[in-house]
Amino acid sequence: MNFLEERIARDGIVKPGNVLKVDSFLNHQMDISLIEEIGREFHRRFAGKPVTKVLTIEASGIGIACFVAKEFGVPMVFAKKSKSINIEGDVYLAEVESFTHKNHNQVVVSKKFLGPEDHVLIIDDFLANGCALLGLISIVESAGATVEGLGIVIEKGFQVGGQVIRNLGYPLESLAIVDAMDPETEAITFREQIEK
Amino acid sequence: MNFLEERIARDGIVKPGNVLKVDSFLNHQMDISLIEEIGREFHRRFAGKPVTKVLTIEASGIGIACFVAKEFGVPMVFAKKSKSINIEGDVYLAEVESFTHKNHNQVVVSKKFLGPEDHVLIIDDFLANGCALLGLISIVESAGATVEGLGIVIEKGFQVGGQVIRNLGYPLESLAIVDAMDPETEAITFREQIEK
Repeated sequence: MNFLEERIARDGIVKPGNVLKVDSFLNHQMDISLIEEIGREFHRRFAGKPVTKVLTIEASGIGIACFVAKEFGVPMVFAKKSKSINIEGDVYLAEVESFTHKNHNQVVVSKKFLGPEDHVLIIDDFLANGCALLGLISIVESAGATVEGLGIVIEKGFQVGGQVIRNLGYPLESLAIVDAMDPETEAITFREQIEK
Repeated sequence: MNFLEERIARDGIVKPGNVLKVDSFLNHQMDISLIEEIGREFHRRFAGKPVTKVLTIEASGIGIACFVAKEFGVPMVFAKKSKSINIEGDVYLAEVESFTHKNHNQVVVSKKFLGPEDHVLIIDDFLANGCALLGLISIVESAGATVEGLGIVIEKGFQVGGQVIRNLGYPLESLAIVDAMDPETEAITFREQIEK
């Protein structure tokens, strides 16, 4: 197990309905040392890619994306859910369904912050059905920018998102892929990945 | 002018309706070097306080709070807007009105992450009417924890929030206080603050 799988095995809580709670260290309370290590690991995995921007979606991707952007020495941009009066009309827009919240959101990125010259690394905390990532990919492509890769902290391997994104040909790195969870025993089965 | 005021003067955009857009470096695209410097400055201003947790509210406070928490070597907790199915029932709850979005939100923090032993530094990007901060203060006090201070990146000095919080006796540090903005000339007037 890598550092993240070990932490999930130790502190993750399995709930009925395929819910994995990692809110004590990842997406409600954040263990900053762990998030820094995640930042360094994504930097290692995407080393050599000419990344100019890190892109994520609010809210729980923001902290992680910050530390990835720090490693690359580039700005971080987060897509905003719902249109705020503080975002100008000139935005890239995508429709995203949330598995967690069971609702639809429009997510927007101001056109000022993505353009054809950009090489984008997309970062998020979870990958389940892939809707959020597909929304972010569509925003990058609307901008004429290049998707250099996608970095996910926890992929739910029993949902379709990972396969959809890989089948589309995008380089996708998930630090942990959960293939099964048992709410009775709290056992979590991680997919074996070849260490690069 | 300090480093933040200089950046606001250079890259902030004044819009009618007392809107200050800082989305090119603070709350949509984030300049990570600047956010790191903000983290170090809050650490300096609250040096000696026995901070055990940094608390903020999603979404735009998260990146800033991460770097503050990194400096203090403590976890960061962000209050979540609206109740997700992934948050357990056992939460501290506050009602918050958003100036930007013109709506009300319930914000919640799981009781697991704040308790009477905690000394909390509250961080946010903007202070206007103070509703978000008052909500966070009420959550900390519901937990029986201690508010060690509040750190704000940009305070709108012409709105009541700053005065309300200071009158309540809480140590409030705003890195920039904007006393006036002129959408015609784009001139921004910062309040003079005594350098500590």
